[in-house]
Amino acid sequence: MSTQKRIGILTSGGDCAGLNAVIRAAVHRAELTYGWSVIGLREGTQGLLRRPVDYQVMSLGMVDGAMLRLGGTVLGTTNRGEPFAYPMGDGTVRDRSDEVIGGFRELGLDALIGIGGDGSFAILRRLAQKAEIPFVGVPKTIDNDLGLTEVSVGFDTAVGVAVEALDRLQPTAASHQRVMVLEVMGRDAGHIALAAGIAGGADVILIPEIAYSIEAVAAKIRQVRSTGRNFALVVVSEAVKTLDGSGVTRAYHGGETRYGGIGSYIGDRISEATGAETRVTVLGHVQRGSPPSPRDRLIASAFGVHAVDLIAEGQFDRMVAWSNRGVHSVPLAEAIARNARVLPDDPLITTARGLGISLGD
Amino acid sequence: MSTQKRIGILTSGGDCAGLNAVIRAAVHRAELTYGWSVIGLREGTQGLLRRPVDYQVMSLGMVDGAMLRLGGTVLGTTNRGEPFAYPMGDGTVRDRSDEVIGGFRELGLDALIGIGGDGSFAILRRLAQKAEIPFVGVPKTIDNDLGLTEVSVGFDTAVGVAVEALDRLQPTAASHQRVMVLEVMGRDAGHIALAAGIAGGADVILIPEIAYSIEAVAAKIRQVRSTGRNFALVVVSEAVKTLDGSGVTRAYHGGETRYGGIGSYIGDRISEATGAETRVTVLGHVQRGSPPSPRDRLIASAFGVHAVDLIAEGQFDRMVAWSNRGVHSVPLAEAIARNARVLPDDPLITTARGLGISLGD
Amino acid sequence: MSTQKRIGILTSGGDCAGLNAVIRAAVHRAELTYGWSVIGLREGTQGLLRRPVDYQVMSLGMVDGAMLRLGGTVLGTTNRGEPFAYPMGDGTVRDRSDEVIGGFRELGLDALIGIGGDGSFAILRRLAQKAEIPFVGVPKTIDNDLGLTEVSVGFDTAVGVAVEALDRLQPTAASHQRVMVLEVMGRDAGHIALAAGIAGGADVILIPEIAYSIEAVAAKIRQVRSTGRNFALVVVSEAVKTLDGSGVTRAYHGGETRYGGIGSYIGDRISEATGAETRVTVLGHVQRGSPPSPRDRLIASAFGVHAVDLIAEGQFDRMVAWSNRGVHSVPLAEAIARNARVLPDDPLITTARGLGISLGD
Amino acid sequence: MSTQKRIGILTSGGDCAGLNAVIRAAVHRAELTYGWSVIGLREGTQGLLRRPVDYQVMSLGMVDGAMLRLGGTVLGTTNRGEPFAYPMGDGTVRDRSDEVIGGFRELGLDALIGIGGDGSFAILRRLAQKAEIPFVGVPKTIDNDLGLTEVSVGFDTAVGVAVEALDRLQPTAASHQRVMVLEVMGRDAGHIALAAGIAGGADVILIPEIAYSIEAVAAKIRQVRSTGRNFALVVVSEAVKTLDGSGVTRAYHGGETRYGGIGSYIGDRISEATGAETRVTVLGHVQRGSPPSPRDRLIASAFGVHAVDLIAEGQFDRMVAWSNRGVHSVPLAEAIARNARVLPDDPLITTARGLGISLGD
Repeated sequence: MSTQKRIGILTSGGDCAGLNAVIRAAVHRAELTYGWSVIGLREGTQGLLRRPVDYQVMSLGMVDGAMLRLGGTVLGTTNRGEPFAYPMGDGTVRDRSDEVIGGFRELGLDALIGIGGDGSFAILRRLAQKAEIPFVGVPKTIDNDLGLTEVSVGFDTAVGVAVEALDRLQPTAASHQRVMVLEVMGRDAGHIALAAGIAGGADVILIPEIAYSIEAVAAKIRQVRSTGRNFALVVVSEAVKTLDGSGVTRAYHGGETRYGGIGSYIGDRISEATGAETRVTVLGHVQRGSPPSPRDRLIASAFGVHAVDLIAEGQFDRMVAWSNRGVHSVPLAEAIARNARVLPDDPLITTARGLGISLGD
Repeated sequence: MSTQKRIGILTSGGDCAGLNAVIRAAVHRAELTYGWSVIGLREGTQGLLRRPVDYQVMSLGMVDGAMLRLGGTVLGTTNRGEPFAYPMGDGTVRDRSDEVIGGFRELGLDALIGIGGDGSFAILRRLAQKAEIPFVGVPKTIDNDLGLTEVSVGFDTAVGVAVEALDRLQPTAASHQRVMVLEVMGRDAGHIALAAGIAGGADVILIPEIAYSIEAVAAKIRQVRSTGRNFALVVVSEAVKTLDGSGVTRAYHGGETRYGGIGSYIGDRISEATGAETRVTVLGHVQRGSPPSPRDRLIASAFGVHAVDLIAEGQFDRMVAWSNRGVHSVPLAEAIARNARVLPDDPLITTARGLGISLGD
Repeated sequence: MSTQKRIGILTSGGDCAGLNAVIRAAVHRAELTYGWSVIGLREGTQGLLRRPVDYQVMSLGMVDGAMLRLGGTVLGTTNRGEPFAYPMGDGTVRDRSDEVIGGFRELGLDALIGIGGDGSFAILRRLAQKAEIPFVGVPKTIDNDLGLTEVSVGFDTAVGVAVEALDRLQPTAASHQRVMVLEVMGRDAGHIALAAGIAGGADVILIPEIAYSIEAVAAKIRQVRSTGRNFALVVVSEAVKTLDGSGVTRAYHGGETRYGGIGSYIGDRISEATGAETRVTVLGHVQRGSPPSPRDRLIASAFGVHAVDLIAEGQFDRMVAWSNRGVHSVPLAEAIARNARVLPDDPLITTARGLGISLGD
Repeated sequence: MSTQKRIGILTSGGDCAGLNAVIRAAVHRAELTYGWSVIGLREGTQGLLRRPVDYQVMSLGMVDGAMLRLGGTVLGTTNRGEPFAYPMGDGTVRDRSDEVIGGFRELGLDALIGIGGDGSFAILRRLAQKAEIPFVGVPKTIDNDLGLTEVSVGFDTAVGVAVEALDRLQPTAASHQRVMVLEVMGRDAGHIALAAGIAGGADVILIPEIAYSIEAVAAKIRQVRSTGRNFALVVVSEAVKTLDGSGVTRAYHGGETRYGGIGSYIGDRISEATGAETRVTVLGHVQRGSPPSPRDRLIASAFGVHAVDLIAEGQFDRMVAWSNRGVHSVPLAEAIARNARVLPDDPLITTARGLGISLGD
């Protein structure tokens, strides 16, 4: 039904849980069903820039059950090295896309599977179009902000890590009558904070999509106290913004330089406004590196198999996607264009408000 | 917008993780948004048969964050006591539906939220129609075999427990070169086995929807060995059936009486057919009782809030349902009628086969 | 054998996992074996200062299995309010010990069980001596720096949380070739960092007892790289000190004000010295609030039972202690005097060095 | 300080969590501190019987952090193949010890580290004495029945798995008013059942060291009910015995052949005696295969380093052991002779009784 093919696979952008499960599944499908070989490319497109090209043949023997359970990516990944505007280290950038394409040709690859987010997809798609490389994308992002798919690889695990932290903070908050602030990831989208806050019993959830005011946060904490409960849990997405629209970001916090993170900043503001004792936990990369949750492994496995099927069917420039109880695919361009931030009428916003959670507005 | 209401809530059928999160969410929405009170009914409809009626008023103060994290149901539940055919203990059954309805009237309830599966819904719907009780259903079942919803409360947790068991069995299987059999729940549907088997790296998954032959299972185990791997993981759904159509069930195993469960039976057959050393784990009720996973808590919270909203909107005889990233509702009758067993063209069947997993056929 | 007694119990100082298990066990032993009642005092000695005295009778029905699994303390606790030097809020302190003792008398208590660390024990012992209150101490501290006991309640759980974080950081460190810094608790003693670092596969462990130099840390990271591994895990105890003896603490970091914590400070120093990309996780109070580990629950249960037995035997001014496979008791004064920081010849120091872990010296 | 040595290492008997952590630590110590090489022998002494001898050189590069976290043993293990009485497959046994010793000589090994339990140690010691092989033992057994050490590798993890199961059974037991029976491992000693039962909130714990009567068990369950709690948790060690001294074992149950395990048997007896609905979970090998707990990793690491140190110091025929906060060593012969079953005056027996737990007597 199909001739022998060589498929390249790479992971790009920030790592997350489930990447290895995608790779493992793709290798299984390619070898077992089609008799094709899969070539793992090192560190996104970085390995294709090196000479000799930096790659490894992924055989079935290498991709065992242990790999299914392993966080991170055995191929390595990076947030840097955009081929069309490669930072040369001296402040200048250069178009090195021809070198990347050259590396791809050198390996004699017939198609490429890229596991990434919208940023990576935009670049990989441009590369694929320039070089006429048959390309299929597999969505991964802990932020879950890719459109046209219910969920991306890595999100479920990241939410789980954040919820577990809230479960742990609740008893110590209650014992000491404190307000506990948990800073979670979410560069542009508040999905982690929203889902984790609901599932973890937060009183306040601050997300980038809804500008917060400390007054609103303080009012909620005072209301909680008025019911006789002297502690509260606050989830803060790393990129939240204040009401007046001035950006309060990880780097600046309105110009104050003494803060390591927005969590500490919010914690101090709450303390000032309410007199409450606050404590801050910054989860950081434990949200990315965890072993994949069962659901992430399931989704990743379905994605890996389906990505290879798309290549077998000659369906390119598409992204695999999850909906309902299984996998399908959508046009890559539409998925990139359709960002999935938290909308004002998101059903989970209704859920959060229904539970009495303050969103800081 | 709405007058003061009293809403009854009950859990019915086998318990699972997330029931308390539904109750907690409903109480929050009812009290905070509508100013209504929620009355918890004890042990499904059993409490409504007792005189005085066995219930508890669920106030906000009772449904704190601890309840969100707690497995089981604080209201109690039961698989017994069908009101229209109540087992009287002497082998006869009696229609006691009027007593149940009488209990409902005695409490002065305006509407009822029932958290159950298709069996419970069919009975509760009949009760609601007979007595003109405004009724809304919240789907829960670890088997995930309710139609028209992507997922029911309890499924994600049950899968997680089974996957964790596979993660634990893999290293000991490898160390001793054994075939490990894991018996999981799933009375009529194989969703737990299928999802857990894929996510847990199983070599063989046996589900009720696909009749198995020991020859096919043995062939897979021999094939695994031929690759140099001397161990295997086998997931067996409790209600699997053999190829010839004769039922091999928990109770009978083809007439052999020495087996406590289908897992032991399959383990022995594999041992006979392949000479492999086998060991069996029977997870049993740890699949039900676990603390709810973050996803189950999220879904349950959304369901609880939305169920109350449906009552506020006067939308009755409906079931809340999950699709994509949030909650909506569907006609209850359709949900009951549309069973969701694993279909031959289920995308996850394709995923499993793509990974080289044998389904015993 | 003994007359009916009323025993007070309180938790004092920073909370940790297992406190509720101690209380639960004491209530069981007191009620079931001796027919005594247990009175829970609120927030250390704070509740004894209030009028009416703030307490709750702890009956068997209240201390069920859920309490065994619950983090924190249902009695509340505090790090503040030393009775002999009570901070009056205006900068002055006052001796309020007579009021505390008055509260104790008012409740008609025959003996007191205090669950605390060395600081709390010193104060409670002074109170007990002043008022001739029969007193027994139960050691709890995540730092495990109490002498004469192998382990205190809360330590095993705190180590477990830190190890889990390292397990999660390892894959993302490897994927991005980063140095991951994990800041853990440990005000005066490095036991958490040392145990967690060994069990979690750290390359560098910095503890308060061994002054570190960034040069030594950087040398280790370079050595790791020379073996072809481009990532590293660094565990930093919150109170580590630099080689020259000048204190680098959570608050100061040598005078630099832009740091939220020592972890960020060390991360930046490593980055400067090695060029490595570093990321920081600050676990904070998730180390305290977690549900108690099985071992903490076991130890706490044994401690709670034994503390009541000591009272029954008239053995006062003693601390329950763990050694080998069970519980015994030691003189309280000796336990307070014998601090258990990490010693240079600690067997685990040998273990760490044997694994090639750098201790920064 | 020492000449270049080649050390053999093997795992023997049933696998458990932490074996790989011992191997990893030994390789680190041997290579980094002494410049020695470590040779891994396959499947206990089985690999030494094969020609060519079945072994692998363990280099530092192979024993990374992932190995520290991995359950089972990368060397493989077996319960079979006693060299002095080797089962030839035809029902006869033969002394093949000379072949094993020949394999050892062929590899040019200077010393042997054996990770095992008392049975393995007895055999390995005999081999070592016959061939004058410098031998050091590292204790591992989930049963924790080795004398002269506080704890053996694998015990803490096995207890943790059992406790987690109890945590999961409690809510479903309460929801359905059932008695949940958990069958745990423990061939000769009840340490797992005792520790897990205390830490997991069991009402009844049955261990091999204390003959049980169903009457006593039923009496406890009735007493629990009399307090208004309609569920109970029962932990059963796999090798428990009835009061009259007749063995009720996994295989026989007093001659009844329909039982797969003692758990089902006890469950049915409880149901008969009390009318309670019972459900049974058989944990099986998930107790062995789990990833090692932090404590098991710590102990295993300390053991691996110290075992190599003993060889460097010329201290042979010894077993490494744990006490208080660290590692030391004891004469191997004494450790074998001193079995550590649960004694009637075991402090944890007092703890269990103090909590009101029935031990079935």
